[in-house]
Amino acid sequence: MTTVPGGEFEAIARIQRRLGLAGRDGRGLPQPAPGEVFSGDDAAVLARPPGKRLLLAIDLVVEGVHVDLALGSLADAGWKAISVNASDIAAMGGRPLHAVAGVSAPADTDIDAVADGMVEACTAQGIALVGGDLSGGDRLVISVAITGTCDDRSPVLRSGARADDVIWLSGPLGASAAGLQLLRSRGGAAETDDEGERLLIQAYRRPIARLREGVAAAAAGATAMIDISDGLSKDLDHIAVQSGVGFRLSSVPVAEKASLEQALGGGEDYELAFTAPPGAPVLDAFEVAGLAPPFRIGVCSSDAAERSLEGRQLEIRGWEHSFGA
Amino acid sequence: MTTVPGGEFEAIARIQRRLGLAGRDGRGLPQPAPGEVFSGDDAAVLARPPGKRLLLAIDLVVEGVHVDLALGSLADAGWKAISVNASDIAAMGGRPLHAVAGVSAPADTDIDAVADGMVEACTAQGIALVGGDLSGGDRLVISVAITGTCDDRSPVLRSGARADDVIWLSGPLGASAAGLQLLRSRGGAAETDDEGERLLIQAYRRPIARLREGVAAAAAGATAMIDISDGLSKDLDHIAVQSGVGFRLSSVPVAEKASLEQALGGGEDYELAFTAPPGAPVLDAFEVAGLAPPFRIGVCSSDAAERSLEGRQLEIRGWEHSFGA
Repeated sequence: MTTVPGGEFEAIARIQRRLGLAGRDGRGLPQPAPGEVFSGDDAAVLARPPGKRLLLAIDLVVEGVHVDLALGSLADAGWKAISVNASDIAAMGGRPLHAVAGVSAPADTDIDAVADGMVEACTAQGIALVGGDLSGGDRLVISVAITGTCDDRSPVLRSGARADDVIWLSGPLGASAAGLQLLRSRGGAAETDDEGERLLIQAYRRPIARLREGVAAAAAGATAMIDISDGLSKDLDHIAVQSGVGFRLSSVPVAEKASLEQALGGGEDYELAFTAPPGAPVLDAFEVAGLAPPFRIGVCSSDAAERSLEGRQLEIRGWEHSFGA
Repeated sequence: MTTVPGGEFEAIARIQRRLGLAGRDGRGLPQPAPGEVFSGDDAAVLARPPGKRLLLAIDLVVEGVHVDLALGSLADAGWKAISVNASDIAAMGGRPLHAVAGVSAPADTDIDAVADGMVEACTAQGIALVGGDLSGGDRLVISVAITGTCDDRSPVLRSGARADDVIWLSGPLGASAAGLQLLRSRGGAAETDDEGERLLIQAYRRPIARLREGVAAAAAGATAMIDISDGLSKDLDHIAVQSGVGFRLSSVPVAEKASLEQALGGGEDYELAFTAPPGAPVLDAFEVAGLAPPFRIGVCSSDAAERSLEGRQLEIRGWEHSFGA
């Protein structure tokens, strides 16, 4: 964290004050424990994470690829960069611990707004924001790395699904894609009296990782899990390929005001898809955790080539924002 | 690690093969232990790190800010992104464990070359490269996050220096700045029969974190430490401000073919500056570790405003690549 541009010490000091204040004003951003050092040194010093394994992930949010600043704010972009990383931890059945953020942006960018969105997302999802790096650049690139733990459980990989396992989905899909379409049709204006439309726009701008759902799925004996970031068909394909199974979907729950196409290919909903043996206590685990019941959407098959929905071949497609877009 | 652009699965597969091959062909890139999963899932699954504390840092390398692709290769940029992060761990007295990398780049970028440089730097410095994310973008932005451990020692912060502590430097400064100047004067051409010039260019293009030096300094009882990334005067100023001391330098070792100005303000040498009580066995610790002796360059003073070199006021300056550059 040493290559901070000389002109940005002020911005960093403001962000550090914000990180400290965020805890003191009751918003609940995790603060350093005795012996811990968050921002301000060469590296953050953190308590040794609990559990046998450490989870570690990195995800980029790039202007023009993952976010369109005409359709959402800088704070929304900061929020999203945290949530997509938290979602990677959720998809392992883990809970997030610490995040660090690198931001490259043009000189006139309101870095405080980006930081606000990150702080809000960390606060909402119980993540400690412990350090970062700032740099110039042509367009906004936010890079967040995150750590997590599964405590005493094993992480749920993509590769553990077996034939006859039931396929579950933590919630209906398509809201984010429908929100994006809605915003595009209005040139980015988000004002609406319609509560349903408001929820679609929020799903697109401020996604939330399904952290409690991931832990409940793991506790119920999930054999494989992934977050729906690229689109259901494409993300289930990852599980199928890495587990050596096929999948046969009976139905896909579609979010209100969204289409089946948006549900299947839209991506960015950050719901969790997971597999579990037929007798696994999935519904019980979600109920005990106070969560809405997940949807049973199909089964894994021994034909590793099978990809079907309601008996018809399912096209594997998803959010194809090509490299260099 | 889920928002991988659809068109880049091929590149990711090639990089994954490279990471695996790198271990098998004897180059020594750390490979996953039983129960660990590196690339290919939502998050990497790693053995719980040893020691009481976990170190975590992130640093960006941005084309046009931190690297000039007319003066070095894509592989050099990848190398540098790893080394600047490893240097953050070195400056805590730690050893690096795992790195994850996010790369945003224009469509025609040779991502394999960037990955090659990262793999080479990880191999040279004993770091496991365990995952990443790829995205499009206008210019190359490499974001690396790194974990590390101090094992059973306490991390060496910037804030622990006390009046009368001796200030040490792990090696002479200015080589990187001199290498940059040399490359600029030749329009990027690196060919030279002069071994001294070759070393300057290597110092600029392929910096190495002083990991063994950082551990030796910590073992000898270092009270504060920082890596020289922005320039000696500016980096020592960080220690002074965070420790509440001043500093009085007697001399600064200058690398062969470099100037005092390059040594004081050039930055990017990644030598370590550290403080230790007058009687601390610093020279012994370096000798036992088989390292060249560090340089004794001054003392900390109780006048928190003092910044002097050879009795003259020292201007605090450094590598001021302004935000938005």
